[in-house]
Amino acid sequence: MSEKHKVAILGSGNWGSTVARIVGSNVRDRTEVFDPEVRIWVYEELIGGRKLTEIINSEHENVKYLPGKELPENVIAIPDPETAIEGANILVFVLPHQFVRSLCGKLAGKIRENAFAVSLIKGVDFDEKGVILISDVISRELGVECSVLMGANIANEIADEQFSEATIGYRNREHARLLKHIFQTPYFRIAGAPDVPGVEICGALKNIVALGAGFCDGLGYGNNTKAAVIRLGLIEMIRFAKKFFKDVQSMTFLQSSGVADLITTCYGGRNRRCAEAFARSGGKKSFEELENELLNGQKLQGTLTAKEIYEILQRQNLLQEFPFFEVIYAIAYQGRSVEGFLQQLSEKELSLEGDID
Amino acid sequence: MSEKHKVAILGSGNWGSTVARIVGSNVRDRTEVFDPEVRIWVYEELIGGRKLTEIINSEHENVKYLPGKELPENVIAIPDPETAIEGANILVFVLPHQFVRSLCGKLAGKIRENAFAVSLIKGVDFDEKGVILISDVISRELGVECSVLMGANIANEIADEQFSEATIGYRNREHARLLKHIFQTPYFRIAGAPDVPGVEICGALKNIVALGAGFCDGLGYGNNTKAAVIRLGLIEMIRFAKKFFKDVQSMTFLQSSGVADLITTCYGGRNRRCAEAFARSGGKKSFEELENELLNGQKLQGTLTAKEIYEILQRQNLLQEFPFFEVIYAIAYQGRSVEGFLQQLSEKELSLEGDID
Repeated sequence: MSEKHKVAILGSGNWGSTVARIVGSNVRDRTEVFDPEVRIWVYEELIGGRKLTEIINSEHENVKYLPGKELPENVIAIPDPETAIEGANILVFVLPHQFVRSLCGKLAGKIRENAFAVSLIKGVDFDEKGVILISDVISRELGVECSVLMGANIANEIADEQFSEATIGYRNREHARLLKHIFQTPYFRIAGAPDVPGVEICGALKNIVALGAGFCDGLGYGNNTKAAVIRLGLIEMIRFAKKFFKDVQSMTFLQSSGVADLITTCYGGRNRRCAEAFARSGGKKSFEELENELLNGQKLQGTLTAKEIYEILQRQNLLQEFPFFEVIYAIAYQGRSVEGFLQQLSEKELSLEGDID
Repeated sequence: MSEKHKVAILGSGNWGSTVARIVGSNVRDRTEVFDPEVRIWVYEELIGGRKLTEIINSEHENVKYLPGKELPENVIAIPDPETAIEGANILVFVLPHQFVRSLCGKLAGKIRENAFAVSLIKGVDFDEKGVILISDVISRELGVECSVLMGANIANEIADEQFSEATIGYRNREHARLLKHIFQTPYFRIAGAPDVPGVEICGALKNIVALGAGFCDGLGYGNNTKAAVIRLGLIEMIRFAKKFFKDVQSMTFLQSSGVADLITTCYGGRNRRCAEAFARSGGKKSFEELENELLNGQKLQGTLTAKEIYEILQRQNLLQEFPFFEVIYAIAYQGRSVEGFLQQLSEKELSLEGDID
């Protein structure tokens, strides 16, 4: 008889804990296929003098990152990642992307045979040659195949069991099928797309577009304009994905990870909010100041990504082809006027195939 | 020397008058190519005892449908359509779709040689075999080629010269090029897509999706859910377009006429608003009552389209493939519970190609 599938979750923030609720419940319901124990690596910290892992394992609640929501009893918090992955063949990565490489360094060589991974991390990595997907970092460092799961997924709404969708970007269909079993619920609907870069790249680039959407809100622009800005950003996300990765499919951008996540991010979310405040101040308050004022210690992803993407495009002499990303960067970092945002955009040609001149 | 191009505009409501402002100004700036006179057919009515055409021609303002905005002096209001199109080779149709057939009946045989048309009419027509595009009605009745212009275009925002985009769906590239010259301005950006049905069908079906978005708002659902509903609606719009028309391209749905118009309609607009009120009332107030309460005599397009589409799908035995449209219809017309909206949707498989089971 073949060994059962066993899941480990690496990361226990707001999204990791939300996902642990779902995965723990799903595998418990299908013990003919899955080992019911789901270990979750929890970066140890003290909460009122008690260890967070102990609190989770006795009270079945992540009191710091997902307070008020019960975790299934088969979800076991483990303070070191090597122990967390023992015996697991399905590795769920859900931690801030700056910690991925060091974590993989600890895990390399300790992975169960035929294991595979899925990344829920929204971000991209970079080197001097261009963009590197987080899923590729995981894949290379650990020697495992790595899918991604992305979508319009505000964690607290999913923890409240509100209807949502997500997309699994996959290379291996059988892995994707198993992942769908561990993630899907009646309120959290999973679809597959055989296009890892197409799914993953949106998760990072959407935050740049959200800055543009926030500028529109801060400048008091109407519905047409905001929709146009979101669309122009989407076109540039697609162009970027196709430029840097082979076999990216246009249909992927119609998945939850594409257009739906973009809409959510451009109508809610902290990137939009800070950009709105930036535009309201006429660009007089820096994004750093606004981060401090509005985000209570959290960091703004969009401005960071805008800078990273700008530098890649500049190095590769591609800025001409990405006027949207260029304008956002210039407004955020070079003091270019936010009032001129649309003027600058409208002077560029941002066309799809089949356009007329 | 070849004759100059001459534009006639058929329809003078809020959108028609807005478009007349743009077209009048554009042709006046390029008199080497265009005849500067733009005739606009105005359905005659009395405003304070004066004829609307006389007011427009003396005061250069459509005081009823676009008050406060100057029309260029080269835009001439004409009370009968046959006179309006005399000498014109570019016919801009921008009137409610129920009047198209009777108007074409009057114009047939009176069209300048080599004339072509563009339809700005959002809607579709039907017969017992299925869907008929308004552009095809115009094309057949008048024997002219007909492009379409659609997009995220709330008329008053464009009249205020706020940045917007639109899409020309075309079959004849040379016609599309001329149309771009008469419509594009620095604040109103035109892109072309060689896919008339892909562009045109969104303009009608988006209003059904907006009802779903309004249900979400009325039921107090969060951002994830609303984005998911908009996306599921978009997928069904695409499926419908591809089912009934050949050569529809996925990329077309990324144009302003696709995703951008859908976003605008699902976050603003009267269909969303009435559906929100419908859900708030728990379905106890009918859409007819809400129309009377909220719309001040205007009619709701979305419920009408939902009914027409439902009947087509039912006749062709296709309801199984369109669960979104089916659910919206059942809630609006058959008393099915609006609270169960998402439950009903989530039980269906709404997949793109490449999905996993």
